[in-house]
Amino acid sequence: MTSPTGASARRPANLGETSAEKDVKIELDDLQDIACGAGFLGVGGGGDPYIGYLVCKAAIQECGPPDLIQPNDLHDDALVVTSVMIGAPTVTTEKCISGEDAVFAVKKIEEKLGREVDAIVCAEIGGLNSLLPVMTAARMGLPVIDADGCGRAVPCIDMTVWCAGGIMPGAVALVNDHLDVVMIEADDARRAEDLSRAAVTAMGLSVMSSMYPMSAEDMRRTSVPNTMSIARDIGRAVRNPGQNTPVDSLLRFLKSTPHYSACGILCTGKVMHVERETRGGFAFGLAKIQGNDGNEYRIDFQNEYLNLVQDGRLLAMAPDLVSIVDAESAMPISTEALRFGQRVSVVGTSAPELLRSEKALENCGPKRFDIGDLYTPIEKINGWAR
Amino acid sequence: MTSPTGASARRPANLGETSAEKDVKIELDDLQDIACGAGFLGVGGGGDPYIGYLVCKAAIQECGPPDLIQPNDLHDDALVVTSVMIGAPTVTTEKCISGEDAVFAVKKIEEKLGREVDAIVCAEIGGLNSLLPVMTAARMGLPVIDADGCGRAVPCIDMTVWCAGGIMPGAVALVNDHLDVVMIEADDARRAEDLSRAAVTAMGLSVMSSMYPMSAEDMRRTSVPNTMSIARDIGRAVRNPGQNTPVDSLLRFLKSTPHYSACGILCTGKVMHVERETRGGFAFGLAKIQGNDGNEYRIDFQNEYLNLVQDGRLLAMAPDLVSIVDAESAMPISTEALRFGQRVSVVGTSAPELLRSEKALENCGPKRFDIGDLYTPIEKINGWAR
Repeated sequence: MTSPTGASARRPANLGETSAEKDVKIELDDLQDIACGAGFLGVGGGGDPYIGYLVCKAAIQECGPPDLIQPNDLHDDALVVTSVMIGAPTVTTEKCISGEDAVFAVKKIEEKLGREVDAIVCAEIGGLNSLLPVMTAARMGLPVIDADGCGRAVPCIDMTVWCAGGIMPGAVALVNDHLDVVMIEADDARRAEDLSRAAVTAMGLSVMSSMYPMSAEDMRRTSVPNTMSIARDIGRAVRNPGQNTPVDSLLRFLKSTPHYSACGILCTGKVMHVERETRGGFAFGLAKIQGNDGNEYRIDFQNEYLNLVQDGRLLAMAPDLVSIVDAESAMPISTEALRFGQRVSVVGTSAPELLRSEKALENCGPKRFDIGDLYTPIEKINGWAR
Repeated sequence: MTSPTGASARRPANLGETSAEKDVKIELDDLQDIACGAGFLGVGGGGDPYIGYLVCKAAIQECGPPDLIQPNDLHDDALVVTSVMIGAPTVTTEKCISGEDAVFAVKKIEEKLGREVDAIVCAEIGGLNSLLPVMTAARMGLPVIDADGCGRAVPCIDMTVWCAGGIMPGAVALVNDHLDVVMIEADDARRAEDLSRAAVTAMGLSVMSSMYPMSAEDMRRTSVPNTMSIARDIGRAVRNPGQNTPVDSLLRFLKSTPHYSACGILCTGKVMHVERETRGGFAFGLAKIQGNDGNEYRIDFQNEYLNLVQDGRLLAMAPDLVSIVDAESAMPISTEALRFGQRVSVVGTSAPELLRSEKALENCGPKRFDIGDLYTPIEKINGWAR
């Protein structure tokens, strides 16, 4: 039997005309910037981007940099799938990724569908999960698409904008470090999530997955565009602030983007308290921040930061982005890295419009997370321009 | 898309020469006898055989009686799979079986392997799970094999004599009442069990499954033969005791069988106490019996009765069979039907030799169930002939 990760790099046949002209690649030099931007857009979750950086670096050194293509670069009927870690980010920091597992999950989807995949798309532009598609694409000789299925990170597989757009997770392939495979097919996204969560918990809470096989046409219609390059450019803005502070440079860049233009600092202060609990296949918890303004702030999380509360008042709520960054360097801090004494700024950002549709709010709005009844956009609460 | 249960009845191409001559079928009239015998061999578990009787009756009335063939009736390379319920028997009594679900699970194995199944084999000749293969065979127009993978019922999928004989569960297809599918592939039987149990728990604890796809040659080499007809004949012996009491008639018949010849009444008395707990995907519990001899007896169960204890002394232990029957009628009583005040006899029976191999004892001996360190055969403990 051949290696389960299969053949050598291959060139997909389903690329449209424009891709050869642009010829943008994700190079080694981009990885730390993507990791930084993905940490920010991951709102604390999606897995530690540093692990993503390490596994991507190894893959690119071994197999070369993958192409970063635009959604329009693919023929309508090209086959696109995700490569994504599912589990609790706290576990992934202790239980690393071989790469073989992630590729094997994509191979299982190919085997199931009886055809080869043409490109890898990012399921959630957050943390590790924004770099995993790059690693898998590099290892499989496939392009990675400059778009994603959430515009941030989310804890459940049914919370994507794909799902809100009518695309089901379809076949879900889960692979653990033994290369055991669990394949899930359910015609209801919430049941697919529940079945996957149970399997993932039994598989060790840090599992490589491939799912959401779809046509390039469906992907184009339902994805949040440009998020891979936005993540990279957030990293660049933080690393090269020029005359500004890193946090100001970050905010300036966000304001220039189509999705994240309403943004601002919600509070700055010191982390006073962190509680964590791994339960039901998720990393739950809360953090308290003593603001420099004298107020006390609370943030709840379920893999990702979900809200910012001051005196019982919600200043931000999912699906809008609540990110915690180092107050000086603007480097994002994940839920598992958050600890007492850190000096932080909480940056709030508008969610992409696709995440604010009625259906999307049902899937990942405040009610789903039990943090509030009604969604109010962050710019409305805080009187920001958008 | 066509119905997921697929095409009309078909005749397998892989039958050997002898089957046409024998032409034994499982008729409607056999079902209650098989249910009774399967209740006995199921040692309290395997699901309520009455439910098996009902779903089988409907299938045979609709599709006709399936052939009961001998292992030798199949060509060596014929493809054989199981049709089996996994979960907690307590749940199956409340959550019935459509039949479509069980057939769909077999179809998923066919889809995975890219070929049609030639015959259905019983995974465990116990309770519902001895009749489910008959139902699935009838609905698919396939023969059912007069053999099984345990010679009794067992709680875990890695406890079969197939596993002890080196056959892995292979692809495991799990289907719930929504026709959601979870497919599991693990090259380790214990991990396949653990992953299946987690999935089954999330799927509602009463799930239709197909697994252990194997060649007829492997099936022949590793199965316990004749158990489907033995189950039927146990039922006949109990129903037609002639001059004997039903319990005596049962024991007389068992003594004439190749597998269960060492047998006897271990105690007779009244059920004084039953405790139940559904935990970890199983129905756990214990029962206490006040013996007519003045002694108090205890039986532990995990889906199936595991032992009989008197004054701290094990009178019988898995994999030997501990069955509880009505003291008058000899009708078997399952763990979920056991209740205070029942007058019962506890019948102990030798396990088939294949279940007593070193490897099989590792999988389903006393240590695995935490009921003792060392296996002692029931005939040795009780001074019975074998």
